[in-house]
Parts: sequence; C-alpha cells; structure tokens
Amino acid sequence: MFTARIYITLKSGVLDPQGEAVKKGLAALGYECVKEVRVGKYLELRLDAPDTASAQAQVEEMCRRLLANPVIEDFRVEV
Amino acid sequence: MFTARIYITLKSGVLDPQGEAVKKGLAALGYECVKEVRVGKYLELRLDAPDTASAQAQVEEMCRRLLANPVIEDFRVEV
Repeated sequence: MFTARIYITLKSGVLDPQGEAVKKGLAALGYECVKEVRVGKYLELRLDAPDTASAQAQVEEMCRRLLANPVIEDFRVEV
Repeated sequence: MFTARIYITLKSGVLDPQGEAVKKGLAALGYECVKEVRVGKYLELRLDAPDTASAQAQVEEMCRRLLANPVIEDFRVEV
C-alpha cells in the first residue's frame, strides 16, 4: 500500500479569484504584509501498486484524466 | 519577500465526502486500486517579513485565525 501526495496549483497567469478573496480577508484582519495568495488543492491517496514507480505513473495518469485540469492547472505527485 | 506553503488537511476521523466522491470517480475510470482519498487545501502566500521565523509565526497565526478550521482541520506551514 502506497501513499501518494498530490499538489494541484493554478498555472501562473491564470486568475485566482479565491486567492484574491483570501488576500482581502487577511488584509481585513490586519495582515497587509501578504502580497499574493494562490489557492490550490492537496490530495492524499492510498493505493495498491506493485512498486513505487508504477504507483507514481498511475497517480500521474489519474491527475491527467480526472484530478487536475491540464488547461489551467499544474500538478505534482510524491509517492 | 518570503513564500509560505500551507497544507490544510481534515483531521483523521473527520468524514471526507469530497474524497469519497473522488474515489468513486477514480473507480468508475477503472482505478479500483485506490483505497482511500482525502482532499485538502494547498495555499501559497507571498509576504513581507523581517525574517523566516517571524514569517512562519505570522502564517501560523493566519491559519489559526482565518485559513484553517482548527475544529476539524490540521495545518502545516513551510516558509
């Protein structure tokens, strides 16, 4: 059983309204020091696989097919 | 200028319906090898701070006050 950690982030240049909202919320609490906020997703998967390399390959395929939107998002997988 | 990475995860034991939905979606695509999915948030902050330690402390305070729900979520900060 392997644990895969997936980090999905918006590509740079893609507008992030959620991040802007978080930045405004932080500024309203007094944290004007925050200049930029980008919000992404973090997933933890537990999966069966014969070895680390094939787990990594499978999870990357899952990201391309379902978990991330390759048009606007980048992803990174750690097994 | 520092970059802080924030990982917010549901505490273990807290139901994760979004993770269950992702697991079912993966199973429908043929990935029955996936036994568990937990969905969390990932944030990147760019902020001004005098040094790494104070950036870390400030971002942890932001997490407690706004970014995470300490009742059901854990967070981890890397500066």
